[in-house]
Amino acid sequence: MAVDLGGTTIKSARYNAHGIPEETLRIPTPSSKGPDAVVAAVVQAAAALLRPGVRAVGLCAPGLIDTDAGTVRYASNLGLRDTPLAAAVADAVRLPVTLEHDVRAACLAERQLGLGAGVRDLLVVVLGTGLAAGIVSDGRLLRGATGIAGEFGHIPVHADGELCTCGQRGCVEAYAAAGALVRRYRRTGNTAQTAADITARLDTDAVAARIWAEATDALGRALVTSTVLLDHQRIVLAGGMTAAGDRLTDPVRRSLRGGLAWRTAPAVDISPLGADAGLLGAALHALTATEAAPGPGRACRDAPAQAHTSRTA
Amino acid sequence: MAVDLGGTTIKSARYNAHGIPEETLRIPTPSSKGPDAVVAAVVQAAAALLRPGVRAVGLCAPGLIDTDAGTVRYASNLGLRDTPLAAAVADAVRLPVTLEHDVRAACLAERQLGLGAGVRDLLVVVLGTGLAAGIVSDGRLLRGATGIAGEFGHIPVHADGELCTCGQRGCVEAYAAAGALVRRYRRTGNTAQTAADITARLDTDAVAARIWAEATDALGRALVTSTVLLDHQRIVLAGGMTAAGDRLTDPVRRSLRGGLAWRTAPAVDISPLGADAGLLGAALHALTATEAAPGPGRACRDAPAQAHTSRTA
Repeated sequence: MAVDLGGTTIKSARYNAHGIPEETLRIPTPSSKGPDAVVAAVVQAAAALLRPGVRAVGLCAPGLIDTDAGTVRYASNLGLRDTPLAAAVADAVRLPVTLEHDVRAACLAERQLGLGAGVRDLLVVVLGTGLAAGIVSDGRLLRGATGIAGEFGHIPVHADGELCTCGQRGCVEAYAAAGALVRRYRRTGNTAQTAADITARLDTDAVAARIWAEATDALGRALVTSTVLLDHQRIVLAGGMTAAGDRLTDPVRRSLRGGLAWRTAPAVDISPLGADAGLLGAALHALTATEAAPGPGRACRDAPAQAHTSRTA
Repeated sequence: MAVDLGGTTIKSARYNAHGIPEETLRIPTPSSKGPDAVVAAVVQAAAALLRPGVRAVGLCAPGLIDTDAGTVRYASNLGLRDTPLAAAVADAVRLPVTLEHDVRAACLAERQLGLGAGVRDLLVVVLGTGLAAGIVSDGRLLRGATGIAGEFGHIPVHADGELCTCGQRGCVEAYAAAGALVRRYRRTGNTAQTAADITARLDTDAVAARIWAEATDALGRALVTSTVLLDHQRIVLAGGMTAAGDRLTDPVRRSLRGGLAWRTAPAVDISPLGADAGLLGAALHALTATEAAPGPGRACRDAPAQAHTSRTA
C-alpha cells in the first residue's frame, strides 16, 4: 500500500498484486497545523487502510527527500524540515516503509506500468501546481549531487521574464504550471479557480488562448533544453493539466520540433496513469524493499528502496 | 597511445604508464580532400608513433560517434558519415583500437586525472570553436538515446536571439563559443582572428568587453539550466577559451549564482589538463579495453570500452 503526501491532499491506497487499488482514502493535508499534525495525518492515512497481507508501505512526498534515510529534508509547502516520516509510519504499522520523491515515484510507475516501459532514456514531466520531472538516462533514474535532479520547473526560458515563486525570472514554471496559468489569467482582471477553467475557454476567450499559448510554448522550449542535454527517447507528460489532451500535446510538440530543427524530436505523449501515478509508484517502490516487485524486469533496480522499520521494534 | 581527430588538426601521442606523453605529433586534418584522406591521415598519425610495448590505441573525434561499433556516424566538420575509423586503424596497427567522442574522452580524463576525480555528479564543458559537455550523473557518463547527450551548445538561452550555426536562434553556442565570439566581434567592423585576440582587449575595447560579457552571461545561464536539471556537484570548464582564466570564471560564477538564488551553486573551475584532455582521455578509454587502467578506482566503468581488432586478422 502507499501514501502520497501532497500539499493539499493526502491520498492513500491499498493495492492488489496487479496494481489495482482495493481501497483508497483522501484526507486534507493539515499543513497549517504544523509538522506534527502532518506526520500524524500520514500515519492515520496509512493505518486506516492496513489489512493482514499488506507487506510494505510506500510513502511519497514533494520537496527535498532523503530516500536512504526516509526523511523529508525540506518541503516548504508542507512545513516539514528533517522529518523522519518513514520511521514514524513504521512505528505505527510495524511493516517495512519506504519514502520517495513524488515525481520520481510517478516516473517509476510510468516505467513499470505506463508509457516508460522499456524506454532507457525517458523524461516524465509532472504538470501540477508546480512543474518537476523524473529523468531516466540509460535506464537509471537520476538523483543528482544533493538529490534534487529534475527541477525542470526552474529551467529559464525567457531571460528576465515572468517572476517565479523561486525568486528567479523567466522559469518555465512561471508560465506553464497550473498555478502560474491561474495567476497570469487573474492578473488580466478575469476570474478562474483552476487551470481547467482556463483551458475550457480556449475557443472563446482570447486572453485564455494567449496565456495557454505562452504556457505550451514555454514548456516546449524547456523540453528543447532538456532534450539537447539528455537526448531523450520519449517524453511523457503527467499530472492534472494533462486533462487538456491534444490542446496540450499539439502545441508542445510544435514548439519542441521548432527548437530542434537539427535533430529528431523525441515523442511526446500523455501518461495513461492519471493523477495517481505517484501513489502507484510509491507502492512499487515499497515492493522492491520486500524483493517482490511484480511484472517483467526489475524496473526499480536503479532506485534501491531502503525499507525503514520501527524505531522501537 | 591516442589520436585526437579534430576539425583543424590531428593530434597523436604515445603515453607512458603515468599518463605523460613520450612522443607527440600534430598534422593538419585534410578535411577538404574527402573522407578517405581523413581516415588515411588518422592511420598515419597512429602508425607514426607506434613502438613495441604499446598495448592499445584510443581514438577520439567530434560529431555523432558510435563507440560500440567504432564508427563516426556523422561529423559535418570532417565530412565523415558511417566511417569505420577504429577498424581502419586496427587494420594498420594490429592492436586493439577504441573510438570515443572527443568531449566524453576529455570528461573521462578529467575524472581520472583532473578536477573530476571522485566527483559523482560532474559537468565538463569544453569551450572550443563550438561548445559541448560531458555529463556524469551518479558516477556514470550519460550518452542518451541516440548517443548525443551533452549537446550543451544548443541550450537556448535567449528566446529568438542570435542565429546559431545549427539553424536555431538563441543557443548558448551562438554567444559563448570561440567561433561566435570572433563572428560577433567582426560584425561590429573590428578585426580578430581568435577568441584570444578579443579577450586580450577587454580592458581597452568596449566592444570586446560587451561581447565577452554577453558570452559569459549566456554561459552562466546555460549552466543554471544544466544545474537545475542535473544537480551537478562540480562544473569544470575546459578547452582553448579557458586561457582567459579569472576573466572567464569570475563572470560565469556570478551569472550562475544569480540564476540559482534558491539553491547553492556548484563550484566552477578551469581544468588543469589543458587542451589535450581529449587525447589523454582517448588513451585512458583504450586502456580499459585491455583491462589495465592505471590509478585508483575504475573511472571508466561506465564507459565500457569496445576494442576493435583488425578486420583481416
